[in-house]
Amino acid sequence: MDKFLRDHPSKPRTRDEKEKVINRLKRIEGQVRGIQKMVEDDRYCVDILVQISAIQSALKNVGFAVTERHINHCVSDAIKQGEGKETIEELMSVLKQFSK
Amino acid sequence: MDKFLRDHPSKPRTRDEKEKVINRLKRIEGQVRGIQKMVEDDRYCVDILVQISAIQSALKNVGFAVTERHINHCVSDAIKQGEGKETIEELMSVLKQFSK
Amino acid sequence: MDKFLRDHPSKPRTRDEKEKVINRLKRIEGQVRGIQKMVEDDRYCVDILVQISAIQSALKNVGFAVTERHINHCVSDAIKQGEGKETIEELMSVLKQFSK
Amino acid sequence: MDKFLRDHPSKPRTRDEKEKVINRLKRIEGQVRGIQKMVEDDRYCVDILVQISAIQSALKNVGFAVTERHINHCVSDAIKQGEGKETIEELMSVLKQFSK
Repeated sequence: MDKFLRDHPSKPRTRDEKEKVINRLKRIEGQVRGIQKMVEDDRYCVDILVQISAIQSALKNVGFAVTERHINHCVSDAIKQGEGKETIEELMSVLKQFSK
Repeated sequence: MDKFLRDHPSKPRTRDEKEKVINRLKRIEGQVRGIQKMVEDDRYCVDILVQISAIQSALKNVGFAVTERHINHCVSDAIKQGEGKETIEELMSVLKQFSK
Repeated sequence: MDKFLRDHPSKPRTRDEKEKVINRLKRIEGQVRGIQKMVEDDRYCVDILVQISAIQSALKNVGFAVTERHINHCVSDAIKQGEGKETIEELMSVLKQFSK
Repeated sequence: MDKFLRDHPSKPRTRDEKEKVINRLKRIEGQVRGIQKMVEDDRYCVDILVQISAIQSALKNVGFAVTERHINHCVSDAIKQGEGKETIEELMSVLKQFSK
């Protein structure tokens, strides 16, 4: 994973933090399975598109939660240690990708 | 489902069409599970964000495929029958939601 | 302009239609000039970003209005004449670009 | 401007920094005027939509440049002074708005 600056967050996620994110991802996983069933049942296209939008929105919110924790810990720690430059460049690069 | 104009596409999806979409959704489901494992393993935030971006991109492509089929069949059929107005309004509404 | 299917909409825009779009674009032009002044006055970054978001939203709405008229006229006319295929492909291509 | 944490960036923009951003905004302003002319000339909808996409992309890039400078100065300075919390919340809020 040599293209990233680190392998782990600068401050490990607590059990509670992990569970909150994983639970949100499990709900998203369930929504993706729900769409598979809608396609199998030949449901109306617009109905399917509305569900896809809902997943995109949920996924974006997970992304923002991960980003906020990243800035609060990894980026903040790097800045405090006078090593913010690379971390901020990496952050901007992923924000650009994320907003496409 | 009375907020949608229909329950099913104007032309039923073939077995082959269903399978193509479902296979793409199964891959996306696998990617969502992959992120759960990344969180469990306390992987680096940016690494996780890149994977979330990849899912968003894959999901958007499924949405565009569903939209294209919708226009090719439901919308086109409605227009040919002189009943395009409501169908086009419904399409615009979902496109706006989808692009948020 | 040989990469587009047409030079003009299948049904010409009325004076009134043109003015509505142009007025929205003039407001957007004014907003862009407003941001130039904010930069000149060295205003706070977040304040500037909020204004940029407002312009993006206004611009997106103009795009949706143009898209809706395009579907209501150019795309509908092509479909009625049995020539929807290329027009729908062109529409999907611009929708993908527009949603980036 | 009491909804923002500051009136100005923590480190003033140099003349050169201001000019770079203003020049990009002037080009965008010119592009917006160009679209007004396209509407006046009743140009093809897809042609107009492609130009709107180009402006959105240019505007997003200006937004990212402003965001990067904001993180490099205002956010970094707040973090170094142990006052990162509010600044990071404000940043997340504008990132969410910006990505809509």
